[in-house]
Amino acid sequence: MKLSSNGQCNFKSCLWRRAWTFRCLLIVVVIVFSQICTRTGFDVMLNLEYLLFPDMLRLYLYRLECTKSQRAYGSGLRKVGSRLQSSGDSMPTIYVVTPTYQRYTQKADLTRLSYTLMHVPNILWIVVEDAPTTSALVTNVLLRSGVEHVLLAAQTPKRYKLKNPMAVKNWIHPRGVAQRNAALTWLRSNLSPLTKGVLYFADDDNTYDLRIFEEMRSTKMVSVWPVAFVGEILVERPIVRNGKVEGFVAMYDPSRPFPIDMAAFAVNIRLVLDKPNLLFDYEVKRGYQESHFLQPLVKRSQLEPKAANCTEVLVWHTRTMMPMLHLEKKLRLASGMPIFNFEI
Amino acid sequence: MKLSSNGQCNFKSCLWRRAWTFRCLLIVVVIVFSQICTRTGFDVMLNLEYLLFPDMLRLYLYRLECTKSQRAYGSGLRKVGSRLQSSGDSMPTIYVVTPTYQRYTQKADLTRLSYTLMHVPNILWIVVEDAPTTSALVTNVLLRSGVEHVLLAAQTPKRYKLKNPMAVKNWIHPRGVAQRNAALTWLRSNLSPLTKGVLYFADDDNTYDLRIFEEMRSTKMVSVWPVAFVGEILVERPIVRNGKVEGFVAMYDPSRPFPIDMAAFAVNIRLVLDKPNLLFDYEVKRGYQESHFLQPLVKRSQLEPKAANCTEVLVWHTRTMMPMLHLEKKLRLASGMPIFNFEI
Repeated sequence: MKLSSNGQCNFKSCLWRRAWTFRCLLIVVVIVFSQICTRTGFDVMLNLEYLLFPDMLRLYLYRLECTKSQRAYGSGLRKVGSRLQSSGDSMPTIYVVTPTYQRYTQKADLTRLSYTLMHVPNILWIVVEDAPTTSALVTNVLLRSGVEHVLLAAQTPKRYKLKNPMAVKNWIHPRGVAQRNAALTWLRSNLSPLTKGVLYFADDDNTYDLRIFEEMRSTKMVSVWPVAFVGEILVERPIVRNGKVEGFVAMYDPSRPFPIDMAAFAVNIRLVLDKPNLLFDYEVKRGYQESHFLQPLVKRSQLEPKAANCTEVLVWHTRTMMPMLHLEKKLRLASGMPIFNFEI
Repeated sequence: MKLSSNGQCNFKSCLWRRAWTFRCLLIVVVIVFSQICTRTGFDVMLNLEYLLFPDMLRLYLYRLECTKSQRAYGSGLRKVGSRLQSSGDSMPTIYVVTPTYQRYTQKADLTRLSYTLMHVPNILWIVVEDAPTTSALVTNVLLRSGVEHVLLAAQTPKRYKLKNPMAVKNWIHPRGVAQRNAALTWLRSNLSPLTKGVLYFADDDNTYDLRIFEEMRSTKMVSVWPVAFVGEILVERPIVRNGKVEGFVAMYDPSRPFPIDMAAFAVNIRLVLDKPNLLFDYEVKRGYQESHFLQPLVKRSQLEPKAANCTEVLVWHTRTMMPMLHLEKKLRLASGMPIFNFEI
């Protein structure tokens, strides 16, 4: 402690120190309170980064506004919180577009996919139901997940509707066209042209290794990678030489401009926002939806290979079997009424 | 500030305050450092709860020891950390037993299940491969997940091996018997008889709502709930009246003592540890494995109904389709060699 020349203590210095003591104590109290809030499920409301960086707080409050209804629902489910913990202004958002349709395994498939996406920071999940309106079933899966999302409904025109979407030959009509277009329209109406982000089309029954989301996040134009169980071979994939895509391994119509699956690429969102008329189309030749979408955006030579130069499988085109329900009719007849009326 | 009678400042008080300033600053530095560590992936090493509760630190260090190899692998994958964040001495561990076998979709199915289990605090995942030894593929999925686990191998005897496990009639021989028995033997050799925990058999292609794990955690003896897509009906389920299980909705042999699926129940681990000879058996009548296992443990009247008195579906007996690979042979013939040699 500094003393003045007459031996008395320097009051100003002491007061300054006293103020610092209180400041420190205040900071400790705030931090301890923030920790308690975080641990007990009050979310990251008062976390340190928000105190230090007001911009992040603003971003967080904006998000809170978007997702406050989700939070109300999600309280029963332990929050992963990864999205907010790891997000930042500098991290491009991944816009994951998922078309979905009513079937027995819809809730199971969407639940499982939601648990994958709950691990991915900074995503916006745009789910589009093939229905005249959104359903309580899908709404609740999304709300329970706590993943930031937009739920839309867009019906497939009757003439393009598959009688049995679970049939082996389910590619007779293009699928997901109306739904993906609804998502594109939403994105173009709601995002600023300067948005930093990546667009990815993720079907609800596929399987995704978490690493693919981190790989695609840095997409400058269009990035590509292998996908397993597509085109009736084990793995459809780009061939990479010297860091450039030089061709593709594909057996189903390899002459397509981009012989790859919808799950095999991600696009920088700005390219999509720059082309307001680019949509999917029911009248495009079978297997050419991806090429139709990618041709106006990128040349083969500009593709960015991911997943260790396209040598790793991080996406599987899995399909969930239609459950066998041979005895359900018998059960209903025996009991004289629908036995199980609640959500499956 | 207190002043002494001669007007000079109270040196002792000032020094005390100075010490507090430093203490406060030290705490702030430690907390800020812990926050930085947590955000940048150094795990929860220095988190506040460990400073405040040394017992938790010890528990954490013990776990760190168990899983240090996992951590080495898992560094590339963003950690959820839910297990450590929410765990505590008082929370019973869930021992999840998963038999698995080699097939095209094995890695996809296990990856997807691992992402579900990553959200569940306090579990030990016991995965048992139907193989002479454990494989790199399964090991790596487990290590990447960061879920605490034990990996075992137990081969199905040749005479009970299914020629095509993906066939519709895949119940001709009982499945998973040798693998579940290996897990039971491991549990009996490695757990203290006083262990607080719950045993659950979770196949690798089923779908689980996270809520089922929290429901089963409080199992006193044996808890039960509905499972969708089992026994060729939409939902097999216990019938509950006044909080007691009074019967079951099942069409496949409803006369079984416990006409439920392997995914429909959880057992308090002490009941299993108390019966060292209770195992599954290949010679048990078709559909009676669950009854064979449960009969020595519990009476119907003692079953604990979960999932809102068995009115909610939180488990789906989903199956992943065998992928169509009609052109793979052609591709290999065309290229003269196996085209894709890396892990799928």
